[in-house]
Amino acid sequence: MERVRGFRDIYPEDMEIREKIFRESDTCSRLFGFRKIDFPSVEFLDLYRMKSGDELVQQTFSFRDRNQREITLIPEATPTVVRMLTARKDLPRPVRWYSFQKFWRYEEPQAGRMREFYQYNADIFGPDSMEADSEIIMLSMRILDSIGLKKRYQIRVNNREMMQALLENLGFRDVQKAFQAIDRMRKLPADQFLDEISSLIGSRKDSTELVELLGKPMTAADLRSLASGRKEWFSGMDDVVERTARTVELCSSGSPSEIVIDLSIVRGLSYYTGIVFEAFDADGEFRSILGGGRYNGLASTFSGESIPAVGVGMGDAVLELMMRKYGCWKTDITKKSVYVCRPPNSDTSVLAGIAATVRNLGIACMTDLSSRSLSAQFKDAARSGCAYAIICGDAEREKESVTIKNLESGKQELVRLDSLEKFLVEATADS
Amino acid sequence: MERVRGFRDIYPEDMEIREKIFRESDTCSRLFGFRKIDFPSVEFLDLYRMKSGDELVQQTFSFRDRNQREITLIPEATPTVVRMLTARKDLPRPVRWYSFQKFWRYEEPQAGRMREFYQYNADIFGPDSMEADSEIIMLSMRILDSIGLKKRYQIRVNNREMMQALLENLGFRDVQKAFQAIDRMRKLPADQFLDEISSLIGSRKDSTELVELLGKPMTAADLRSLASGRKEWFSGMDDVVERTARTVELCSSGSPSEIVIDLSIVRGLSYYTGIVFEAFDADGEFRSILGGGRYNGLASTFSGESIPAVGVGMGDAVLELMMRKYGCWKTDITKKSVYVCRPPNSDTSVLAGIAATVRNLGIACMTDLSSRSLSAQFKDAARSGCAYAIICGDAEREKESVTIKNLESGKQELVRLDSLEKFLVEATADS
Repeated sequence: MERVRGFRDIYPEDMEIREKIFRESDTCSRLFGFRKIDFPSVEFLDLYRMKSGDELVQQTFSFRDRNQREITLIPEATPTVVRMLTARKDLPRPVRWYSFQKFWRYEEPQAGRMREFYQYNADIFGPDSMEADSEIIMLSMRILDSIGLKKRYQIRVNNREMMQALLENLGFRDVQKAFQAIDRMRKLPADQFLDEISSLIGSRKDSTELVELLGKPMTAADLRSLASGRKEWFSGMDDVVERTARTVELCSSGSPSEIVIDLSIVRGLSYYTGIVFEAFDADGEFRSILGGGRYNGLASTFSGESIPAVGVGMGDAVLELMMRKYGCWKTDITKKSVYVCRPPNSDTSVLAGIAATVRNLGIACMTDLSSRSLSAQFKDAARSGCAYAIICGDAEREKESVTIKNLESGKQELVRLDSLEKFLVEATADS
Repeated sequence: MERVRGFRDIYPEDMEIREKIFRESDTCSRLFGFRKIDFPSVEFLDLYRMKSGDELVQQTFSFRDRNQREITLIPEATPTVVRMLTARKDLPRPVRWYSFQKFWRYEEPQAGRMREFYQYNADIFGPDSMEADSEIIMLSMRILDSIGLKKRYQIRVNNREMMQALLENLGFRDVQKAFQAIDRMRKLPADQFLDEISSLIGSRKDSTELVELLGKPMTAADLRSLASGRKEWFSGMDDVVERTARTVELCSSGSPSEIVIDLSIVRGLSYYTGIVFEAFDADGEFRSILGGGRYNGLASTFSGESIPAVGVGMGDAVLELMMRKYGCWKTDITKKSVYVCRPPNSDTSVLAGIAATVRNLGIACMTDLSSRSLSAQFKDAARSGCAYAIICGDAEREKESVTIKNLESGKQELVRLDSLEKFLVEATADS
């Protein structure tokens, strides 16, 4: 029996660490006042056609249901979340929602890209403000910090509205084409990229200067001085330049991690309307860890009502590569647990009672489920990560006691049943 | 834009309580020494054909991938979990695994049955013992107890091996047909069911006695005395009767909830080979809340190696109906949270710093994201469930302080920035 290609079985050793991503995302989202939602894994394919056209649709797991309607495994969260939002007219805004779901894409599997993946998503609906923009970025940074990647990543911010105006001022005839070219920048040789920009803009000199700017990290102050130094390029753009600069300043005050402005971040999807951002490994390895931005136009495509929105999406695959690289993909030391042995021919119901006692203390407890020798049981206990084994045979029961064996030191002691709880609480406390 | 039929959008108010099911299942599973796994949502359809034949396959969301292979959204966990187990020869046994995933079935939607649902699954692989059987049942009971259903449910236990022998001793020519008939018992009028059993057994007298027994709750002692009173029916069954009785006794010692033997519990799936059990609402409402049993034959179907197994599955749908009925479907009182207001024209970066301070204390904190009036912000804060609002305008900043408004009492006080942390820790402590 084989697995479908591009899908993963996740065994406990990898699952426990993945759970850390879920847990920290939950904690951080709640600290920021976000509430969790959940949604169908199947939607009508048209939902994605409306948002992204046919390109994304090519990469979906889609099929026809028994009524011959085209449905698909969801490739992303945003259309569904916006559908849920527009279905509820009663929700006071701002709405702060997050989710952590599985998604599917029919792409060629590669490192950091499987056909099935988990993705964290968070959105703020309602306000169109730099405070909302920076809140989403700060939440993203907080999650990365919390899972152990502090100072290991860099957030790169840009603004689609600002870039649109800049490219228009520079004389690009087809701005959408320019965005597509910039989106491919890192995949092209430098001279080929310059040629492409030149042919789109019609001026070699401006192209050279623009290409030098793209990808160059800038502070908020750098952006302001660039804009005041090149007044013809930034004409009529004071507000959007200031909003972009202020957003980055707001984010840097909340967290010490690095955040820069990078004019090459445009994010291919044409639906972004304001701030856009991605997070990268500080060493420059891997694809982006997370990405997001403002998309004020999507709700009106679905429902006719315009609802400003800003959001972030973060998949588990690149995150896992990052965590492995920086040593955060390691199980935390778990709380000490206990193994209840079953001496051959002993009265099992007593053992079930002891196990219940241990578990009622919040201490994880395995019981032996076979009729092996005691030494085989000790071996199983140690291998399973238990710190103590409890033995309750006839000799112990006569004394209303149990023997407790420290599996590390091998030391054994007799503990009366009525002081078992006290003993275990002390023995398993974090040292 | 519409949702696909039989699928649900889960908004925060329902999600927060659903999270309680996830959380308690996690906690209980770990207390019992189980480790979490995760697996693909898509498998080759043949995996289910091998286990269950074509009946289940009719009810799957299946389709052909681009290579024309039949794949399906997973309808249940067991085949995948066994596939994962047999792929790893290195795992020491017993293996204790659990998971909480989404599953899909193409059935007509009804109360307690959607086309997409979450299901908890736990299995023990390796030992074929009554200790393993009872461990799975006690874990199931502990989860139900932990989510607030203590004394609200009843576990009904039977044993397929015992029933097989009993039905053979009674003279049933086609025992599989008898199982199918018993599985439908509650859906048929009493006399029609009796007719069906009579026609299968060929004896009206034995049928009447058997039908009286089916569905009658019995203790372990009841089962033992039945077996010793009807020696011809229970001939050669001493071991299996005793194992069934002992399993029930073991489970009752671990938890005070009710557990009975019920000979009508046979669970349709023919792959069960020993103990079987289901949990029901104590009032008898709803379909079963959870169900499971021993299935020692499945691994050898997949891999040729025989691996004894016992497991349980519990969907979220009937559980939700139960929790609503008994008032456990209510959000717990959440920790007090804080709202950072934004007085018009104030310096926003100071506010981001205050929000970071609050969140660093582990206190959930929303910041205002608009430029509304302060009174509108207070209203939003109270509506969002915040206990306190922090205001830091020019007047406060001059005094290196903030104003803190208790949103319930309306009382305001000035707190110096250097004692803000102390104030918040005390104010948000559980009272």
